Amino acid sequence: MAHPTHRSYLLRLECPQCKRVFDPHQLQTFCPDCRGPLVSYYDLESVRRHTDRDALAARPRGMWRWAELLPVFDPAKIVSLGEGDSPLLCLPRLGAHIGMPHLLLKDESLNPTGSFKARGLAGAISKAHELGVERVIIPTAGNAGGAMAAYASRAGMQAAVYMPKDTPQANMLETRITGAEVHLVDGLISDAAALAGARARDEGWFDVSTFKEPYRLEGKKVMGLEIAESLGWQLPDVILYPTGGGTGLVGIWKALKELEALGWLETKSFPRMVAVQADGCAPVVKAFEENADTCQMWQGAQTLASGLRVPKSFADRLILETLRESGGTAVAVSDSDILAAQRHLATAEGLFVAPEGAATLAALQILQRRQWVRPDERVLLLNTGTGLKYLESSFPEEFAH
Amino acid sequence: MAHPTHRSYLLRLECPQCKRVFDPHQLQTFCPDCRGPLVSYYDLESVRRHTDRDALAARPRGMWRWAELLPVFDPAKIVSLGEGDSPLLCLPRLGAHIGMPHLLLKDESLNPTGSFKARGLAGAISKAHELGVERVIIPTAGNAGGAMAAYASRAGMQAAVYMPKDTPQANMLETRITGAEVHLVDGLISDAAALAGARARDEGWFDVSTFKEPYRLEGKKVMGLEIAESLGWQLPDVILYPTGGGTGLVGIWKALKELEALGWLETKSFPRMVAVQADGCAPVVKAFEENADTCQMWQGAQTLASGLRVPKSFADRLILETLRESGGTAVAVSDSDILAAQRHLATAEGLFVAPEGAATLAALQILQRRQWVRPDERVLLLNTGTGLKYLESSFPEEFAH
Repeated sequence: MAHPTHRSYLLRLECPQCKRVFDPHQLQTFCPDCRGPLVSYYDLESVRRHTDRDALAARPRGMWRWAELLPVFDPAKIVSLGEGDSPLLCLPRLGAHIGMPHLLLKDESLNPTGSFKARGLAGAISKAHELGVERVIIPTAGNAGGAMAAYASRAGMQAAVYMPKDTPQANMLETRITGAEVHLVDGLISDAAALAGARARDEGWFDVSTFKEPYRLEGKKVMGLEIAESLGWQLPDVILYPTGGGTGLVGIWKALKELEALGWLETKSFPRMVAVQADGCAPVVKAFEENADTCQMWQGAQTLASGLRVPKSFADRLILETLRESGGTAVAVSDSDILAAQRHLATAEGLFVAPEGAATLAALQILQRRQWVRPDERVLLLNTGTGLKYLESSFPEEFAH
Repeated sequence: MAHPTHRSYLLRLECPQCKRVFDPHQLQTFCPDCRGPLVSYYDLESVRRHTDRDALAARPRGMWRWAELLPVFDPAKIVSLGEGDSPLLCLPRLGAHIGMPHLLLKDESLNPTGSFKARGLAGAISKAHELGVERVIIPTAGNAGGAMAAYASRAGMQAAVYMPKDTPQANMLETRITGAEVHLVDGLISDAAALAGARARDEGWFDVSTFKEPYRLEGKKVMGLEIAESLGWQLPDVILYPTGGGTGLVGIWKALKELEALGWLETKSFPRMVAVQADGCAPVVKAFEENADTCQMWQGAQTLASGLRVPKSFADRLILETLRESGGTAVAVSDSDILAAQRHLATAEGLFVAPEGAATLAALQILQRRQWVRPDERVLLLNTGTGLKYLESSFPEEFAH
């Protein structure tokens, strides 16, 4: 319950493109020259000297156990709702059905606001709070808005959220009940981002859009730290990650690299990272297949997995680098395969996952058919949130009126 | 991720009325003579000798960390979705608003299926699985049905769920997606219980109704173990608990008594336990005020907090004993106060709680006006689940068509 007394070893922020360095004691956004995300670097040598890897498990639960590798300098400024330490589950029954006996799922639905977005927003809002920010604004495909509103409320900040008007009702209502401004936009998250960005500039709100500030990435990376710890500092062979903005994909990879540098891993074998998208909005899949460094804006994005309706991520370059460096790939799945996978997870294992999470199972089955994965491999599905927030899209027949 | 290797020290079941003993290696229900619940007794002397209280924190997260005090003998039979280890949050901003600076909230929404019901059903389904049960049936006010269906699916059991037809839609859909039979009943949970009970008898299903088998209580009690551990083996002064079937209220008290017997507590001061009900269904409040030992069936039960629409608990005697033994009380709150409290928790602390959880804040404000609590006391609100499952009742204006 108490805040950790362990200190952050954050040293600097850096633009991975031009290598320009930015001060983490000042409020930062993104690289103004390259118009790309900033990345946090820690004094890992000191972390290694002062931190016992195996003692981390006995600290109070949640993502702030990893304070040394997180960006907040003053523990009193941490804004927490108990995020992190989501379960890593074996799926023996589903694994047997599909011929993948070593199947795993990390269940991010057991987070505040029911999704992995809590981690990133806990990171961003905590750091903004430490740096004196009082008004935060965000464009969202759904879950990030609800999470930001919750953490802003917890910190006593004013919040404004811009979301497409066809965002699931649960996301609108969870945001509104916190007292945040909710703006419904006739368009996609890219349209919402334009409106939120203009408002931020005109009125001086702090914009916590994906990758437009550096610390959502740090919160999300803790998923990678937890995966390694849960597996006794071993790693899965493959991680399937539903990719909209891609913060978690890049974050997990960053975490594994930090663990390697710390000497905490018991393996030299890294997972192949797979970006999973919907075939109605697959800019990363297209760029990966075309061997491009960046994505093109996807036209007419459409999928029931609202978190995957992201026509172009601000971190497209980092996402594509991660896939290639890890020997991974990118796969697009259909909405009907997503719905079938969602039911399969529920009937075989009792998990009512978000459509984005279900997409990872649909993608795995495609990769099995392509023989891209072997049956003996340890494959991890990342479920990003609870299906409870997607009743309309998960049960279209119930809501067809 | 791995199952714990620690063994259960469960010795026997006993009827607290007639003291008859029952064998925990056989499938048990309730006392046929007294028609009341059975209670589990452990070899606490051996637990004390073999278990280091302070080492529990370093075990893999979740309620099965407490295996010695849980009823499953064979760790391989544990059916888990990662339940337990929910956060205990300080509420400094809300506490300041209402003049209770030491206010705490245990947030059970961070459980599988988004509610505390996951704990009880993990206990019951695991033990049933160990004893060879293959078909389980339950009447439910909502969340218990969703949880049972999830754990049954995880265990590969067949499941049937009986719920009032005005149960929140989220509960119906989360149950149906697991493949469980869902029966909508024109009536209350008591009517659903009659139908489920008859079906169980006629067709040989195992009935996991509240307190009609012994182990939901054991799962729920872990909330009490976690509260003590989170507070450094100190205890709050007051615990406010939303009381439908009352398993958690009785369970938390049982846990604290077990911890006392183990010598693990750092205090001799126990919390006053408060049962919170809705004024449209307050059988425990009525019985407490009339100094009765049992409750009368409440007529015409009505409240938006669907989990509190329980006209009479099977464990009414144990609930009332707990309130009196602890020096506690029972309080009824109105639906409009529940909705106001729900918004207050969201705007002040970013928590979108279930109406049942919000009822505890409304009750606290009544107890403040009665000067039954002092401002310097440490008061714990128990939030039983996520508000996401109650969109219709939490936003009546949105659904008024």
